Amino acid sequence: MITVKRIFDPVHHFIELSTAEAQLLDQPVMQRLRRLRQLGLAYLAFPSAEHSRFTHALGALAMGSRAFDQLVAHGGDLFANAAAVAYQRRLVRAALLLHDIGHGPFSHSCETVLGIPHEARTTDLLALPELANAVAALDVDPADVLGLILGDPESRYPALRELVSGPNLDADRMDYLQRDAYFTGVATGRYDAEQLVASLRLYEPAGKLVVGIDRRGVVALESFVMARYMMFASVYFHHTTRMFEHVLHEVLHELWPDPAVLNPIEEFLRWDDLRVLNSLDDAHSAAARALRNRERVFAVAWEFNGERDLGAFEQCEAALSERFGKENVWADSQAQLLHRLPFGIGEERTVWVGGLGSQVVDAREASDLIAKLSREAYWRKLFVRRSSTGASTSSGQVAREARRICADVVARLGKLG
Amino acid sequence: MITVKRIFDPVHHFIELSTAEAQLLDQPVMQRLRRLRQLGLAYLAFPSAEHSRFTHALGALAMGSRAFDQLVAHGGDLFANAAAVAYQRRLVRAALLLHDIGHGPFSHSCETVLGIPHEARTTDLLALPELANAVAALDVDPADVLGLILGDPESRYPALRELVSGPNLDADRMDYLQRDAYFTGVATGRYDAEQLVASLRLYEPAGKLVVGIDRRGVVALESFVMARYMMFASVYFHHTTRMFEHVLHEVLHELWPDPAVLNPIEEFLRWDDLRVLNSLDDAHSAAARALRNRERVFAVAWEFNGERDLGAFEQCEAALSERFGKENVWADSQAQLLHRLPFGIGEERTVWVGGLGSQVVDAREASDLIAKLSREAYWRKLFVRRSSTGASTSSGQVAREARRICADVVARLGKLG
Amino acid sequence: MITVKRIFDPVHHFIELSTAEAQLLDQPVMQRLRRLRQLGLAYLAFPSAEHSRFTHALGALAMGSRAFDQLVAHGGDLFANAAAVAYQRRLVRAALLLHDIGHGPFSHSCETVLGIPHEARTTDLLALPELANAVAALDVDPADVLGLILGDPESRYPALRELVSGPNLDADRMDYLQRDAYFTGVATGRYDAEQLVASLRLYEPAGKLVVGIDRRGVVALESFVMARYMMFASVYFHHTTRMFEHVLHEVLHELWPDPAVLNPIEEFLRWDDLRVLNSLDDAHSAAARALRNRERVFAVAWEFNGERDLGAFEQCEAALSERFGKENVWADSQAQLLHRLPFGIGEERTVWVGGLGSQVVDAREASDLIAKLSREAYWRKLFVRRSSTGASTSSGQVAREARRICADVVARLGKLG
Amino acid sequence: MITVKRIFDPVHHFIELSTAEAQLLDQPVMQRLRRLRQLGLAYLAFPSAEHSRFTHALGALAMGSRAFDQLVAHGGDLFANAAAVAYQRRLVRAALLLHDIGHGPFSHSCETVLGIPHEARTTDLLALPELANAVAALDVDPADVLGLILGDPESRYPALRELVSGPNLDADRMDYLQRDAYFTGVATGRYDAEQLVASLRLYEPAGKLVVGIDRRGVVALESFVMARYMMFASVYFHHTTRMFEHVLHEVLHELWPDPAVLNPIEEFLRWDDLRVLNSLDDAHSAAARALRNRERVFAVAWEFNGERDLGAFEQCEAALSERFGKENVWADSQAQLLHRLPFGIGEERTVWVGGLGSQVVDAREASDLIAKLSREAYWRKLFVRRSSTGASTSSGQVAREARRICADVVARLGKLG
Repeated sequence: MITVKRIFDPVHHFIELSTAEAQLLDQPVMQRLRRLRQLGLAYLAFPSAEHSRFTHALGALAMGSRAFDQLVAHGGDLFANAAAVAYQRRLVRAALLLHDIGHGPFSHSCETVLGIPHEARTTDLLALPELANAVAALDVDPADVLGLILGDPESRYPALRELVSGPNLDADRMDYLQRDAYFTGVATGRYDAEQLVASLRLYEPAGKLVVGIDRRGVVALESFVMARYMMFASVYFHHTTRMFEHVLHEVLHELWPDPAVLNPIEEFLRWDDLRVLNSLDDAHSAAARALRNRERVFAVAWEFNGERDLGAFEQCEAALSERFGKENVWADSQAQLLHRLPFGIGEERTVWVGGLGSQVVDAREASDLIAKLSREAYWRKLFVRRSSTGASTSSGQVAREARRICADVVARLGKLG
Repeated sequence: MITVKRIFDPVHHFIELSTAEAQLLDQPVMQRLRRLRQLGLAYLAFPSAEHSRFTHALGALAMGSRAFDQLVAHGGDLFANAAAVAYQRRLVRAALLLHDIGHGPFSHSCETVLGIPHEARTTDLLALPELANAVAALDVDPADVLGLILGDPESRYPALRELVSGPNLDADRMDYLQRDAYFTGVATGRYDAEQLVASLRLYEPAGKLVVGIDRRGVVALESFVMARYMMFASVYFHHTTRMFEHVLHEVLHELWPDPAVLNPIEEFLRWDDLRVLNSLDDAHSAAARALRNRERVFAVAWEFNGERDLGAFEQCEAALSERFGKENVWADSQAQLLHRLPFGIGEERTVWVGGLGSQVVDAREASDLIAKLSREAYWRKLFVRRSSTGASTSSGQVAREARRICADVVARLGKLG
Repeated sequence: MITVKRIFDPVHHFIELSTAEAQLLDQPVMQRLRRLRQLGLAYLAFPSAEHSRFTHALGALAMGSRAFDQLVAHGGDLFANAAAVAYQRRLVRAALLLHDIGHGPFSHSCETVLGIPHEARTTDLLALPELANAVAALDVDPADVLGLILGDPESRYPALRELVSGPNLDADRMDYLQRDAYFTGVATGRYDAEQLVASLRLYEPAGKLVVGIDRRGVVALESFVMARYMMFASVYFHHTTRMFEHVLHEVLHELWPDPAVLNPIEEFLRWDDLRVLNSLDDAHSAAARALRNRERVFAVAWEFNGERDLGAFEQCEAALSERFGKENVWADSQAQLLHRLPFGIGEERTVWVGGLGSQVVDAREASDLIAKLSREAYWRKLFVRRSSTGASTSSGQVAREARRICADVVARLGKLG
Repeated sequence: MITVKRIFDPVHHFIELSTAEAQLLDQPVMQRLRRLRQLGLAYLAFPSAEHSRFTHALGALAMGSRAFDQLVAHGGDLFANAAAVAYQRRLVRAALLLHDIGHGPFSHSCETVLGIPHEARTTDLLALPELANAVAALDVDPADVLGLILGDPESRYPALRELVSGPNLDADRMDYLQRDAYFTGVATGRYDAEQLVASLRLYEPAGKLVVGIDRRGVVALESFVMARYMMFASVYFHHTTRMFEHVLHEVLHELWPDPAVLNPIEEFLRWDDLRVLNSLDDAHSAAARALRNRERVFAVAWEFNGERDLGAFEQCEAALSERFGKENVWADSQAQLLHRLPFGIGEERTVWVGGLGSQVVDAREASDLIAKLSREAYWRKLFVRRSSTGASTSSGQVAREARRICADVVARLGKLG
């Protein structure tokens, strides 16, 4: 019998680890993930979104294992060799546990400011002797682990690579959608994970092995696509989250005027969300204080979400810039996010559905809903700096004036968004 | 303090009734609702969908009360008279408790076969002395109750009428979507009822009082529209449910050769789902036996869900009719259901959203998702009678052949649905 | 790959069946379970408790499979033979699917009135050619199936026997507790099924193989014991349920004056809850009408739940009998139920816990909570027939007087229950 | 219509605030609560228990408002004055929002080390001009707020005082039990909050106004008592949590050698959990490193939970002390926690239940379960410092030896715990 550790988790009830996996968790590199929040600054819009990348790493391992077991159960000859199956299972679990270790504080903001992608950090970190030993104890090849995390197109394990870092049916996303919905309290972000996992199958639509779903899982896939949509609309692109991420950029430039400061891996590891937030206390800039105390630096002037609104968007931006100055207006677009909306533009980013006839079909053919949700999205937000007209005007007046300017444009064009 | 009865309910935790309401429940007309299933024959596809209209009536009362209280809390002058508010609250509760009493066994099938709409039955039933007395004990005018149930356009209470029998934000639907999702186990049918109710407001977009939602409730409304979509796709239009409803029609004609048999209200009241199912045991037709023992009379040949599939649908129907005979092919379409898909075609069927500027806007403008889901739907299913080619062919062979015929058509047209 | 059927279920999300299992479901003997309610008359106290034994049979299969897989995963040498494991898995699934087929309408009431235990019916039913063929198609020995259902102490599969018909950790109970909690809406009846199943282990405390739990599952076991307690207190021993079960006895005697009437197996199979309820409509007795229309025949006078109350209980019963006549007073006790309370009196009915040291220990030693809940229970209820004093007194007056008589006794003894 | 802010919360769906309440949230004193974890170090045992006192403050406000509204709805003459009711509602909300502001980092540990109770801090903080102004803007008397938070026995609002800081039915506990269960993932910590709140009533058992429950809420109260029990057993007294709290004490002494250092309120406000954790990085002690990286300093040797185990506990402690040295053995007892177990020893700490007759009764009389759970608890844990025998023995060997020593004692005494 294998000695295992069982960890409570609200999303997956509990998660079981082997002894070696539990020892890997004890590494400071892994413990550091407790000090990186999964959703960065979103807790300023959704107070309870305080969950860390540590819990997500465990959750991704849990989802990945279930997905893998399902592929094996239905994979027939592809998984005939029991030893190879056991190796691949250890491998996919290790890769998912480690997939986020390269993230700096507030991950994407940090990458932009410092110019080092988290993939490069992952490579460096896996080379650290302590971590390398802990990975070796899992009885997997560190190079295979790295290949899965980085999404190496030459990986010997294309199906595992999709589970770890694929564009749609990856365990990373399968966990974070559930987790983010659970911790923000956005009920509509839930999807039917049980059915989705039970429907996973391997297909070879063009001679290439891909992870797809069986036709009985189309409703579950619809719920998954829908959850991405709802979480994008409600959380990831929420105006308060976006505003503070914009402020954070300024703060990070101020905190690290020299981008090279975090280059040494030891220094990089010392930094996490907590240290940044704590450092703001000693910083003197208005932006730092604003972030620490949740002072709203910008007011949202208008939000747009249809193609028909593009003209109104441009005219509003122009009108606001004229009134408040270009430097005080910020136009945000869904294209600036890593979370992609809509689902599956282009064939290589779709999900293949089998069991409908002799061939596999594109999910947009199998589902009216997915076809509709896959149509192009045009989401924009306009913000105005509350302090933009100086001391003579209150912050509330700026917000109201900006809003009225946009309302006038929109009314004139006969559209409302 | 009001003496109340508290009833456990899995969807709303528990439901509280006044003494008079509890006594109304004791009426045989209300107890009969325990013997009508909310989803008719859907339990043949979703085994646990065994819930009755009785529990739904209680749930509709619960949702309606919460919705009404919310309108009052935000309704300002419209609800200045405390006595009038108390009266309207009793009224909306009574109407929702009673709104389904006119349904016969397997409601819509029964209506079609017997030719008496359930609205007419409701009028007759409310005139029964025992029930009239029980309603009078609630201290409401029975004529007002009937007006709300029948959706009288001249009702003195237009907002209440929308809550009871409106096309979108009615308490009937607010309960049954949650309830059907709960009892079928279709997780994706849930919506954010808490937020939706908290967002309800009264508006007067064209000088006419309507129930709409505040802009902070747009995400909740999206989840509501989405839940309708998912329940339609998964449950209401499920091929097994639809097939047995088709069989039921034959059985009811056989059971009641004379449509006048249920005209006397006493006879009508004796009939319920249980009695019909029980009567099948003594019936001798193949259809009756099939329904009782869940023998699949038809095989589903193909399902279509996009406008692009209309051509394929017609060619498949022709090919199947040629092979199996017109009388053995059944073409089902979403237009044949009472549950409407998509949401809100036409202005009078939309939901109005306020708080976005100086005016209220159509939900399809306020939400990219609702706009996308409101596009026309083209859902079709083709069935073939399993016994259609006689004893020489097995039921499984008919199904496979029908399926192959359609697959060939679809492949030739280069489409798959 | 195995062709499977996937069935939605709200408790277990969905349940997968092999082709042969799905065909077994198509048997009229199985379909009949749709017409037997899992909780009999409890829907008169908990309106939504309308779920059938059919859904429970599927759920028991689901829990049993998970429990079995867990025992195998940790069972080492005991499950070294892959073919034997596969056989046992088919066997435990078949037995759980079929374990309730012998129940008549309102099961235990029916048994008492007709004098034929459901175990005997099960034996007869499994001998029916159609059913025997369907069981044979599952590739299991019908004698093994019967042995598990009847709890044969000589069964070759003692661990499976515990899963099917054991006193504590059986899949039957694991499903029905969850299911009854789900459908009644009694939130406190839920337990942590995930953890409980993951903790199942085989032990040999006295050279005999038993199903027990690992020490990490003690909290889950506590929640399981607690759920039994809460469901007993809230649902199974609810005064309304019990009252109508008492009335049902009278009705069944009236319906079947000759207990031999259901002896022929064909006649037995024609009877189900629906037919009984339907027959009440044509019956003329007051009891039949009461049951059909939920008229409360008895009033609950007082409820007792501690050892200290035994004296008060006896004095109240005497006082009520004196006032209303012995024949109009009904004393109910928890001993009259099949659902046992408390948990685990006596060594052979406990759960063994391993992993705490070198030996397995009794759950009452491992858990303070279980020790406390295992203490003897003394639950009693006193009812009075509402019509007991004739037309001169209203039903409400009888209830109030009975209650006052008991209150006086209790006050005199200085106890309140 | 009142302008309100609506905040998503996973436990209560969403929480609505008035404009003035939302502005109070913007105060740095309130934002600081985001940097204090509700469960301190419990996240080292339950990774996702990362929720802050900020979200708990909002949740307590939500529960308190619902509880208050319920008392008003059933309170009759006690709440005849609408203006007074409105005032009390604002008051109870303000007090619950502010009830935790006086907590230092890791609250109770901080109090012990620095010697300043959080109540004194609360008094000082409410006197800060900025906060005093924000409270004044709520239109409540700050002295009333303070009285409720401190549990002033002379408060003019005894019922509100119970809701804010009472021993049983307080909104603080009503929220944190649900919240801690939700965020740890300990499913068994949930209770039926809907029913509990709906059952709240005011009683005057001895001429003194108290918050109690109606008899229909006994099952809900049982679930509440049970949830306290389960959360205590699973989370609050978890050996890993307790061990790290013990280590934290050492670390705080080291961090603040002079207990006066946090006396100035400005300095106090600068400290939070994040700053402490961050400071550990620069500290050099083994304890600081252990806490940061979750190195287990102690091994749990044995756990005891019954009165019968007291002898074994003492003998084990003596044996461990002899082997490893008194300074390396730590005996923990449930008496050292603020979370009290069991429920309701002594009359003034019970819950009163009404509606059972003419008088209110002690919950231990109304419920067999509560009576059983209220019996004295005897929970103990023994820990040994892993480094206790120096470099010659590995940490794992110490743990195993300690465990064996205890197992021998227990076996000799014929008891197992």
